[in-house]
Amino acid sequence: MALSDRYSVLFEPVTLGPKTAKNRFWATPHAIGFGSDASGSAAGYRSMRAEGGWGVVFTEATTIAPEMDKTPHRMSRLWDEGDVRNLTHVAREIQKHGALAGIELEYNAAVGPMTEGRGLAPRSVVSTPGESSLAVPYVGGLVEMDLESIAEIKQIYVDAAQRAKRAGFDLITFHCGHAASVLAHFLIPYYNTRTDEYGGSLENRSRFAREMMIAVRQAVGPEIALGLRLGVDTLDAPFGLGERGIRATGDAPLFIEHMDDLVDYWDFVIGGFEWALDAQSSRTVSENFEKPYVGHLKPHTKKPVVNVGRLNSPDTMVDIVRAGQCDLIGAARAGISDPFLPQKIRTGAIQDIRECIGCNFCVSRDMAHVPIACTQNATTGEEFRRGWHPEVFTPAKNRENDVLVIGAGPAGMECAMVLGKRGMRNVHLLDAAPHIGGSIDWVSKLPGRHEWRRLIEYREHQLKQLGNVEVILNTPLTPEEALDYGAGIIIVATGSFYTRDGIDPYNRLPFGLEPAFGERVLTPEQVLRDGAPVGGRVVVVDSDGYFMGPGIAELLAQRGHEVVLTTKGEHIGEYQRYTREVPHVLKDLRALGVTLRTETTVAPAGEGAVALRGPDRPEEIVEVDNIVLVGTRRADDVMYRALADRRHEWETNEISAVHRIGDCVRPHFIAEAIFSGHRLAREIDSPDPARQLPFIRERRIIGGSDADYVLGADALRQNL
Amino acid sequence: MALSDRYSVLFEPVTLGPKTAKNRFWATPHAIGFGSDASGSAAGYRSMRAEGGWGVVFTEATTIAPEMDKTPHRMSRLWDEGDVRNLTHVAREIQKHGALAGIELEYNAAVGPMTEGRGLAPRSVVSTPGESSLAVPYVGGLVEMDLESIAEIKQIYVDAAQRAKRAGFDLITFHCGHAASVLAHFLIPYYNTRTDEYGGSLENRSRFAREMMIAVRQAVGPEIALGLRLGVDTLDAPFGLGERGIRATGDAPLFIEHMDDLVDYWDFVIGGFEWALDAQSSRTVSENFEKPYVGHLKPHTKKPVVNVGRLNSPDTMVDIVRAGQCDLIGAARAGISDPFLPQKIRTGAIQDIRECIGCNFCVSRDMAHVPIACTQNATTGEEFRRGWHPEVFTPAKNRENDVLVIGAGPAGMECAMVLGKRGMRNVHLLDAAPHIGGSIDWVSKLPGRHEWRRLIEYREHQLKQLGNVEVILNTPLTPEEALDYGAGIIIVATGSFYTRDGIDPYNRLPFGLEPAFGERVLTPEQVLRDGAPVGGRVVVVDSDGYFMGPGIAELLAQRGHEVVLTTKGEHIGEYQRYTREVPHVLKDLRALGVTLRTETTVAPAGEGAVALRGPDRPEEIVEVDNIVLVGTRRADDVMYRALADRRHEWETNEISAVHRIGDCVRPHFIAEAIFSGHRLAREIDSPDPARQLPFIRERRIIGGSDADYVLGADALRQNL
Repeated sequence: MALSDRYSVLFEPVTLGPKTAKNRFWATPHAIGFGSDASGSAAGYRSMRAEGGWGVVFTEATTIAPEMDKTPHRMSRLWDEGDVRNLTHVAREIQKHGALAGIELEYNAAVGPMTEGRGLAPRSVVSTPGESSLAVPYVGGLVEMDLESIAEIKQIYVDAAQRAKRAGFDLITFHCGHAASVLAHFLIPYYNTRTDEYGGSLENRSRFAREMMIAVRQAVGPEIALGLRLGVDTLDAPFGLGERGIRATGDAPLFIEHMDDLVDYWDFVIGGFEWALDAQSSRTVSENFEKPYVGHLKPHTKKPVVNVGRLNSPDTMVDIVRAGQCDLIGAARAGISDPFLPQKIRTGAIQDIRECIGCNFCVSRDMAHVPIACTQNATTGEEFRRGWHPEVFTPAKNRENDVLVIGAGPAGMECAMVLGKRGMRNVHLLDAAPHIGGSIDWVSKLPGRHEWRRLIEYREHQLKQLGNVEVILNTPLTPEEALDYGAGIIIVATGSFYTRDGIDPYNRLPFGLEPAFGERVLTPEQVLRDGAPVGGRVVVVDSDGYFMGPGIAELLAQRGHEVVLTTKGEHIGEYQRYTREVPHVLKDLRALGVTLRTETTVAPAGEGAVALRGPDRPEEIVEVDNIVLVGTRRADDVMYRALADRRHEWETNEISAVHRIGDCVRPHFIAEAIFSGHRLAREIDSPDPARQLPFIRERRIIGGSDADYVLGADALRQNL
Repeated sequence: MALSDRYSVLFEPVTLGPKTAKNRFWATPHAIGFGSDASGSAAGYRSMRAEGGWGVVFTEATTIAPEMDKTPHRMSRLWDEGDVRNLTHVAREIQKHGALAGIELEYNAAVGPMTEGRGLAPRSVVSTPGESSLAVPYVGGLVEMDLESIAEIKQIYVDAAQRAKRAGFDLITFHCGHAASVLAHFLIPYYNTRTDEYGGSLENRSRFAREMMIAVRQAVGPEIALGLRLGVDTLDAPFGLGERGIRATGDAPLFIEHMDDLVDYWDFVIGGFEWALDAQSSRTVSENFEKPYVGHLKPHTKKPVVNVGRLNSPDTMVDIVRAGQCDLIGAARAGISDPFLPQKIRTGAIQDIRECIGCNFCVSRDMAHVPIACTQNATTGEEFRRGWHPEVFTPAKNRENDVLVIGAGPAGMECAMVLGKRGMRNVHLLDAAPHIGGSIDWVSKLPGRHEWRRLIEYREHQLKQLGNVEVILNTPLTPEEALDYGAGIIIVATGSFYTRDGIDPYNRLPFGLEPAFGERVLTPEQVLRDGAPVGGRVVVVDSDGYFMGPGIAELLAQRGHEVVLTTKGEHIGEYQRYTREVPHVLKDLRALGVTLRTETTVAPAGEGAVALRGPDRPEEIVEVDNIVLVGTRRADDVMYRALADRRHEWETNEISAVHRIGDCVRPHFIAEAIFSGHRLAREIDSPDPARQLPFIRERRIIGGSDADYVLGADALRQNL
């Protein structure tokens, strides 16, 4: 447990007004899709970060009045006594592990058109509805705050702060960033075009924030630390507000100085109405990418400062603290990926850190209004509802078994690793390829996807530490050989592949490109993995709807090809809207001169040409050397089928079970492949490992009590 | 309570295998956004239909396994014992009122990419993912069912049916329509391209349904009625599957005959992957619009038949039963709008029926994953959580007051009506116009919106019955006159208006069209209400995002104008995606030759021309005679402000309160204006009528019990 001197600065306590954080690790507020209604799950998630060593653990943006409800987004709420009860539980679970518990409060009128309630009138700085990063733009009008409203909303903040105090929180952050609250809207000229004493000068635009903070302090007394999460730069178009926003070299330092007497700490972020600019993917930004905005701000305050921005590496953390950029290392994604990041740094287990790959799968789950999940860390969100601990693995009851895992892609690597940690006698992880990682090895060659290799690197290191796991490469296997291998349990993880003649999901007919273009149709594997030669003029046909189509278009355009990217869908790279990568992807593709066509059918049009057809546009004929078909993926289930067909031979070969995991079951997200491998290994000793054990569902149950919300409760029973 | 002979046929009992429905009214399965997790609210909603006289009341499509979860859609689930407990409550509450309780079960792999759980593999008829009417197309691959899977899914159905029986349901419908289940996917050649004994011939495509129904009957015994909800026609492109689908004149009658021995009743619907074809808005279809598909099918079965299709009028209901089109009158929307429809027919209170206007606001709430709501019926979804009964109004504690309601639009009409029903001494509903209805009077002039006039007609009739309510038209009022009026309570309902020089919500700058085009810029009111002359070439600029922009474009194109419809948004009529009107709107606009441009900025380009600018398209210059700006709406709050400013005069005028409701608070949906008026009238005698009383929130509460889920519970307390 020796703490390397190199990192000791990260473990210095930091005073936050009346409170003291035990170290510099700050689990910044971020939504996890459990809200305050599933507070067992929320507490399980948050407290795991506390257990992992974060000195300060925040919950998430918490709505403070029904009128600013954001349903179907599952946010935390602090509206009534029931919410107080639920959040009390969350705060206590965090504090159990010696961390300070923080909550972030916001009143935000920039909502979607829907609320769980009805007939509500969210009040705003001015009455014009604004943009929304949600899918539904119709908002109707908002209510411009008059002086009476301003007083009422101040009181709503005060009431919420008093509830937060009663729930036992140590820190209250008021959100004044991401254009996500009236505080921010007052501050930002883009939103605030008022002509009264709350508009115009910076002093006027800060008036509400000052009045509110003073009133809150008076109400909650001196024993709680209060802070502001400030959007210090709202950036330029197309993502930001330009000169009508807040600039890190303009209003931001002035606002900080103006408000400094009222806060116990500052949490700096960036971005305007696109909140995810603070959580950009590794495709777009590198570690500490917010430095240009936040790097010079600390001298403007006497209070401790939190920074964020893909702060993953302990060395960088040390550097920026020593350089005086900040006092506290804020992170959401680094902790989603590894809740035990601080403890691993403290104990020098640097190589054991499960480093965030910046894929933004977590962000996508938030955008899709489902509970959080992580590609790297399969236990994320499962702490309470499945009882999974990212660092604790119980010995398997059937650990006297030898296990053969066929396929060392995401699912196979993860499964072998967890089986190893659960103490199976021998685990052999086999792959025909000369490397582990499966498809990640070539997928990570796409522009901006290099960091996805960490999926391999982390697991490779873990596997090496496990004496009971052997990785065997360059070893193709026949079903016969698998049966003869000598393993009692066989797990098939053979992945999936893109078809070159598959069925178009948009009309369930063959794409019809291969019959016309033959070998000139290429799959992603041919382009990325096999390095197939590609001609000068390329049409990329995307029916997959995620990163692959746009990624290949970008790669080829970078290499100088003339590229058209088409989809029958309404949007380019649809799912990247959920990872919030789309605005960046579109900007980059357009800058590279890629022609983009949505709602477009690609049909052969004579020798070496295709016709692009879609509504509201004349037909276009495009000459083409190659077509890259990012069509449908098919499970490679040949091995599994062969073994299943020979079930009668299992007994003689002393095989008790054959399972399959990952893409060879269902081609899906990488995150789901990893989860699938992890889940099977966690439940390899359950009565029927092929079937998931039920997880705790935090719904209201008629006649229910807390006993219904534990693993194994009768309410969760799925068998009759 | 005399039952008119004319309608007596509707009240004949109908035998459904082992069960008997007391009459022909069938509240068909439909989602309400409470699922089984908020089963108090669900029971409140469903049982209100039973109380209103429906002989059969269904819950909704119920998912039967975690792998086919449709989160964030809040569907009913029947996965475990907790669900059984919750649904038992729903069934009992329905049966209390003498109705049969029905449940609809489905296993459906055509899901979105997300589930509440993880690592699940929904199994499908073939492995190609299909379309989804949800916003997110990325599904990854599905798992093609092998024979083992088929057996497992059959067992999942059996288990679910046994749970449904245990929960006390009388009827189980298996969904085989809307392309929403494996039953439908097996049946429809578009999905089923299998070459084994489950694909090919109709017998093969029906095999799973037969095997499953036989297994279920064996498991649940003879005392439950089993039925199929069959999609009898999957329609033509662009909404349907064409000849690869099921046709009412093709496979449908053959399938009915083939399965008839196994069912106790049939529920016929239409539509393929666009489920809402069965729930099309009044813009597109008229009463009994499904007759061309279902009209000839009854002779093919010996079992009772349910029909649906905007069956609103009692006369039509009688006609189609007498004509032998069906035995049971199925409806969702008619009952959403008026749960007491059957009782009102039975008692001859035909004019009191709150007839559905077919606006599909209910559908939009479902699509947006929030609890159900209705434009006509403000109590929809509020039966349990607010304790509102659509036909029961408690006398107001402060009913000795006289109330002046200023403005007879949606909010004012509704408020005056409910105040009248609550027995206020005198209610005066004033309007400057010569008619009641406010904006509905001219909004209903849009193509296909005539039925929206029912919002006026229903209220007009109700108001006439109320001796304590007086409607006073042609009476503009000054604030002075309002203060002097003699009312103890004044309610301002002055509505909103479209600005002609407003702020563009997409960039919060003035639209900049009026400075260039002056009087040639027209508002929706000028076009529709005032009949302003419109030139031959028109650009409609839509920043509103709902029906108004496309509606005006359609109207003008019908009248022969050359029309360009633009929006800066990603989609034409965005919110109409949620009402599921968009596919029809686009089809109609394109047929009329309207030029559609999304993500498009309209800028003045010299005398009588505008430039259309957007990504991935060259700039276009369009000559224009008029621009219709469907921009932002502004609350008309002049009256409210004037009265608020003269608060010091209230006491001398014996005014105890001035309230505002509807669009003059916040321009929003018509439904929200009506709700706002209703809510205020329901709570006019609460301590602070301006503020909503808390509604019951069916979340899990730590340490909670059923006592936390009643009105007035401490858990709901919002004051400190």
